[in-house]
Amino acid sequence: MSGWKRRKQVWCAAAALAWAGGAWAMEPLPEQPPVPADNPMSEAKVALGKQLFFDPRLSVDGTVSCNSCHNVMASGTDNRPVSVGVGGQKGGRNAPTVWNAAFLTVQFWDGRAATLEEQAKGPILNPIEMGMPSEEAVIERLKQIPGYVEQFEKVFGKGGLTYDNIAKAIAAYERTLITPNSPVDRYLKGEKDALSPAAQRGMRLVEEVGCTACHFGPNFAGPAGPMGKGFYQKFPTFTDNEYVKKYDLMADLGRYEVTKDPADKHMWRVPTWRNVALTAPYFHNGKVQTLDEAVRVMAKTQLNKDLTEDQVRDIVAFLEALTGEFPPQELPRLPETVGFSVVSEP
Amino acid sequence: MSGWKRRKQVWCAAAALAWAGGAWAMEPLPEQPPVPADNPMSEAKVALGKQLFFDPRLSVDGTVSCNSCHNVMASGTDNRPVSVGVGGQKGGRNAPTVWNAAFLTVQFWDGRAATLEEQAKGPILNPIEMGMPSEEAVIERLKQIPGYVEQFEKVFGKGGLTYDNIAKAIAAYERTLITPNSPVDRYLKGEKDALSPAAQRGMRLVEEVGCTACHFGPNFAGPAGPMGKGFYQKFPTFTDNEYVKKYDLMADLGRYEVTKDPADKHMWRVPTWRNVALTAPYFHNGKVQTLDEAVRVMAKTQLNKDLTEDQVRDIVAFLEALTGEFPPQELPRLPETVGFSVVSEP
Repeated sequence: MSGWKRRKQVWCAAAALAWAGGAWAMEPLPEQPPVPADNPMSEAKVALGKQLFFDPRLSVDGTVSCNSCHNVMASGTDNRPVSVGVGGQKGGRNAPTVWNAAFLTVQFWDGRAATLEEQAKGPILNPIEMGMPSEEAVIERLKQIPGYVEQFEKVFGKGGLTYDNIAKAIAAYERTLITPNSPVDRYLKGEKDALSPAAQRGMRLVEEVGCTACHFGPNFAGPAGPMGKGFYQKFPTFTDNEYVKKYDLMADLGRYEVTKDPADKHMWRVPTWRNVALTAPYFHNGKVQTLDEAVRVMAKTQLNKDLTEDQVRDIVAFLEALTGEFPPQELPRLPETVGFSVVSEP
Repeated sequence: MSGWKRRKQVWCAAAALAWAGGAWAMEPLPEQPPVPADNPMSEAKVALGKQLFFDPRLSVDGTVSCNSCHNVMASGTDNRPVSVGVGGQKGGRNAPTVWNAAFLTVQFWDGRAATLEEQAKGPILNPIEMGMPSEEAVIERLKQIPGYVEQFEKVFGKGGLTYDNIAKAIAAYERTLITPNSPVDRYLKGEKDALSPAAQRGMRLVEEVGCTACHFGPNFAGPAGPMGKGFYQKFPTFTDNEYVKKYDLMADLGRYEVTKDPADKHMWRVPTWRNVALTAPYFHNGKVQTLDEAVRVMAKTQLNKDLTEDQVRDIVAFLEALTGEFPPQELPRLPETVGFSVVSEP
């Protein structure tokens, strides 16, 4: 069986499962995300991961932190078409939100990381993102910061300051970034006036139109688990429309760039709908400016449907009702160096 | 009387005042900084200013906030030689700390802003910092963010969203960024074991050597007030030494670049000593990497003195004891836009 056929079969099975019973397609956000056995949560680990997440010293010139592109004070994104790394370099893709990323079964637009741990290792060493030259260079730098050395030992034991453990701490912090109690969640739990009439119409429409064939499950991004198993779709599926050229939707080959399997051309991980109203601009290339246009584009390119403006408005009302509650958090104090800086320039 | 003579007279008077009585040269940090009559503090204003301080949407491409260069999670600086603005552009000077800046009587290295309010207006429009094209463009952008419109009206009244009020809110937040209870403050208040013997020797040394001729007052940066009246010194004063060339101390003409008065060549605002151990690298150009070397450079270039290594160590111990307590604070939630981003690119 070819990769494509196999994938299609998986897709159909998942879609059928999602459709079975209608309302089953939507689930409230669980209170806790899955936690891998080899990276249990602890308060100290989360506190360390939070410091690392906000620390620009993880970038070669001390200007870019994880939070620069995944701003937890906002939507968990940078609200830019593509992100900007060290030296003003632009990346190729739109930054996905870090909020609720813990519920995704693979990370990155192309699913090239199976876990949050694996994801966290990427941008630090990516020359156009945080630009550190090597894992060793990262360790060497953090070793100069006594507060980090101490905390890594406390959390991971002697010799605890390793690149793997940096990723583990960051991932542990990210697993706390959950936005519960969106109006949709409250509605699904029985609070029937949590949704406006427009949002309720939108909720029915996303099923009738077919959006929830892919956008189902706790994160509205496909089946829940197992971790490492991605749920991919071809985008665009229907290419004979104005949007494909207008928004340059074919230039990036998606998952093919990772696997080099021709069946993976234009395959993308299904992204979450949670907080989607806050994460403009849209799609892997960030070329679509507004949520209503994103809805039109998806209906046409994925389902070959032209929505009426009323339908678009109702679907947008539903998607807006997927904005959750952002738990307040304290600013981390970054551990200090006394009398010198670990960031230097020739 | 020439500008230089007049300034020298002011300097001598201030220095004499500082010396009178010895211990008078050092004062604990006051609990509250001066607050200008036309910008009274309020909780809502501080909350608004904090959001603005952390909001990268005040920069043209949405990548740089006030906090990018004045990181309140760390030393209030970026710990870089010079800061990096939009598009990876480098500035010409080292970012001064925002912590306790409220006690300085003028802002910027060259004192070109009389108040925090005036200072806050600069970087937003500076093409190599945050790069917004005009005050109008800033207002236009914030007007698209309902949460800001609402808060500006609440804090400043109808039509409250103005460039002046943006600066007022940011300044109000900055006036809360105070680090009390450093070991030196506790010592000055009578807690005699707050300082190590080395730090106590350093405390005597900075007076004996002459450092406190300029570094006195509540911020160890000169006389307290009135606001707008700067306390400037020539740096380097003694130029016949290895440091001047090694660290390129003459290239920048300092306050002269603002006033074009030849007497202002190489004149600089006396910077604070508070938290100086955390704000490496040092001096206006950030070319000196470590605090001990900064002490050697200052003794030689300002007082023509060669310190022994023991003296350097003791002075550094004293300066390290000027690290205060950083009050914990909550991360601000940045007001959202629903379905679109205010940052776009062609």
